[in-house]
Amino acid sequence: MSDKRQQALDYHAFPKPGKISIELTTPAETADDLSLAYSPGVAEPVREIAANPDDVYKYTAKGNLVAVITNGTAILGLGNLGPLASKPVMEGKALLFKRFANLDAIDIEVKHRTPEEFINTVANIADTFGGINLEDIKAPECFIIEKELKERCSIPVFHDDQHGTAIVTAAAMINALDIQGKNIEDVKIVCMGAGAAAISCMELLIKCGALREKIYMLDRKGVIHTRRDDINEYKQRFANNTDQRTLQDVICGADVFVGVSGPNVLGAEDVKLMAPNPVIFACSNPDPEIKPELAHSVRDDLIMATGRSDYPNQVNNVLCFPFIFRGALDVRATDINDEMKVAAVNAIREIAKQPVPQEVLTASGSSELTFGKNYIIPKPMDPRLLKSVAGAVARAAVETGVAQIELPDNYML
Amino acid sequence: MSDKRQQALDYHAFPKPGKISIELTTPAETADDLSLAYSPGVAEPVREIAANPDDVYKYTAKGNLVAVITNGTAILGLGNLGPLASKPVMEGKALLFKRFANLDAIDIEVKHRTPEEFINTVANIADTFGGINLEDIKAPECFIIEKELKERCSIPVFHDDQHGTAIVTAAAMINALDIQGKNIEDVKIVCMGAGAAAISCMELLIKCGALREKIYMLDRKGVIHTRRDDINEYKQRFANNTDQRTLQDVICGADVFVGVSGPNVLGAEDVKLMAPNPVIFACSNPDPEIKPELAHSVRDDLIMATGRSDYPNQVNNVLCFPFIFRGALDVRATDINDEMKVAAVNAIREIAKQPVPQEVLTASGSSELTFGKNYIIPKPMDPRLLKSVAGAVARAAVETGVAQIELPDNYML
Repeated sequence: MSDKRQQALDYHAFPKPGKISIELTTPAETADDLSLAYSPGVAEPVREIAANPDDVYKYTAKGNLVAVITNGTAILGLGNLGPLASKPVMEGKALLFKRFANLDAIDIEVKHRTPEEFINTVANIADTFGGINLEDIKAPECFIIEKELKERCSIPVFHDDQHGTAIVTAAAMINALDIQGKNIEDVKIVCMGAGAAAISCMELLIKCGALREKIYMLDRKGVIHTRRDDINEYKQRFANNTDQRTLQDVICGADVFVGVSGPNVLGAEDVKLMAPNPVIFACSNPDPEIKPELAHSVRDDLIMATGRSDYPNQVNNVLCFPFIFRGALDVRATDINDEMKVAAVNAIREIAKQPVPQEVLTASGSSELTFGKNYIIPKPMDPRLLKSVAGAVARAAVETGVAQIELPDNYML
Repeated sequence: MSDKRQQALDYHAFPKPGKISIELTTPAETADDLSLAYSPGVAEPVREIAANPDDVYKYTAKGNLVAVITNGTAILGLGNLGPLASKPVMEGKALLFKRFANLDAIDIEVKHRTPEEFINTVANIADTFGGINLEDIKAPECFIIEKELKERCSIPVFHDDQHGTAIVTAAAMINALDIQGKNIEDVKIVCMGAGAAAISCMELLIKCGALREKIYMLDRKGVIHTRRDDINEYKQRFANNTDQRTLQDVICGADVFVGVSGPNVLGAEDVKLMAPNPVIFACSNPDPEIKPELAHSVRDDLIMATGRSDYPNQVNNVLCFPFIFRGALDVRATDINDEMKVAAVNAIREIAKQPVPQEVLTASGSSELTFGKNYIIPKPMDPRLLKSVAGAVARAAVETGVAQIELPDNYML
């Protein structure tokens, strides 16, 4: 067994199995403490909440509690391994929520037969939580699951594989296009992959100004075009009226390649065919659609991003999800809507343009980070993300009328 | 607002809303830490669990995690106030699990239309947890809910309002009968109340030796007898072939009165009609079926217990549920069966007969506690409960074949 592998297993097995625990936030030593925490004292907040349901945010942990919910059908890049095997990933997500945004998050693994059964199960337990982060649910079921749950729940529901990925990708992409001197309205985009993340990324780029007809999406069978009859309604929205059928057809003159598919599907010859000053996001993890070394070896006018921490420009959801939930929960938003997502995109973009604090340089092992081809997006551990992203998201929630309480004075200032 | 009331509300509102939080048990500071906690390192335990599902106990928090699940239909003595209003009570239960048995417990509030929907919801999320504590679910639905969930889940499912109450009541009762010089096989028992706790208490007393035909159970309409056609199948088991119809009829010559009903239903005149050396458990909370002062004023051969901490002999579930789950989870039991419940009864009984440590005397404000009429059951904060009850329960699980792992060496010694 490799050292890295054993190290990862040990990390999960010690000091005790798993990565999270439940701890007490109130005194529980004396009999008097317990008479407040449980019977008879606990009857008082019960009565208050029964009379005024909003008081559940005053007297319980609900308002800071995020459920990380999955069915284990699309675990990382490992596929459908079921609910049990997904538990380490969901606990990991809970760890990131706590680490970056001080949110209490608990994983819930759901087994079910139909998407409806999953939806009913989650809707039935939703009162417990302040927000729901859906995770690692395969497409196309994830679309209907999220849509239905957003309608049925009065708390924010957010499928991070879709929207977290889309927000971070859009922030990095628009910054990259700025640096390359291109307008998002003008660029030809090739999107390799047509799963949940791909579709969500392209939809958000469109909300940020990209033109749908300039996007060429490919699935395993090639270009998605209007004469195909084997595509679901979600891919259908990207069906292009074109005679081009292959990646090699559409990559010609493309300004942007976004890969959310699998390793090594983009060749050096393909990269040569792209327009001047192209942008390549090869997000397949751990093995990208093209290795940065290879892409750079054939083009020197390129901006490249990957999902990996060992290359510049890491596109990583952790730049977004802890902070979008922090902002949403702090104003008790009933939804995470498109305006809140765009606000997160812009907040992330802006941080990359600011001078980088020394602690971020140190943590990332860099001597210098300046907005440019090798630094289009903040580093994952940048402490400025919390204030900027959560603040922007909370303000967008208030502005769009989905906040249930006013923005706290001096929020995130 | 009374001081006590405000104190209880403040306890729940500060230092932050609620009583529990999620905390990290592994390092999460550096980028290296996060590469173990999440992608890419987390893929290793995922693969292990996919190959060997039992490894979920090795690499995740499941094995120490109890779900406290309710629908809010029978909250304390307050009735059906719904899932939201039940949250402080469920968080309180989670607090007690942690405080007394170092178990991680999270509350889940479920809304549903039919009992089947509740059952499906809980069964669908059960993989997440090591055990399920059902709480504050009204009768008779609680019976079918627990029965079905026990069949469908491979982890322990335990309705504390039924079995926790029954275990502590049985332990106290058999000790009281010992002191009064009576055999449980011989006693005439009057049970005032026919809800979940009442039925479960009587069933467990029968498993401990009481005779079903010597039990007289009463609901709001009086004695449950064989000619009544208005009773559900659970009460039906206690239908007595008798002409007696009222409490006053059956209390004559009764050795035992168990009240799990409501305040002040037992009068001083009733107490006078009981057999010599009677036992009265008046468990309605906070107002018992008869005030101890009143009962003692008419009989001096009496043993009396209540649910209150300000009288001797408090019958309190916290003597049982943290420890029964501790023992069950420590040997990864697939069930909490009758033998494990009886083992818990005997372990609790035995502690009351042992000399009381000074710290228990101090915590309970007593100068002396000696097994006898005013001390038939241990105090709730007795630290000996953990080892004794969990140990006995774990051993019973092993002996009855429901343990999935061997008893750890020196377990609870």
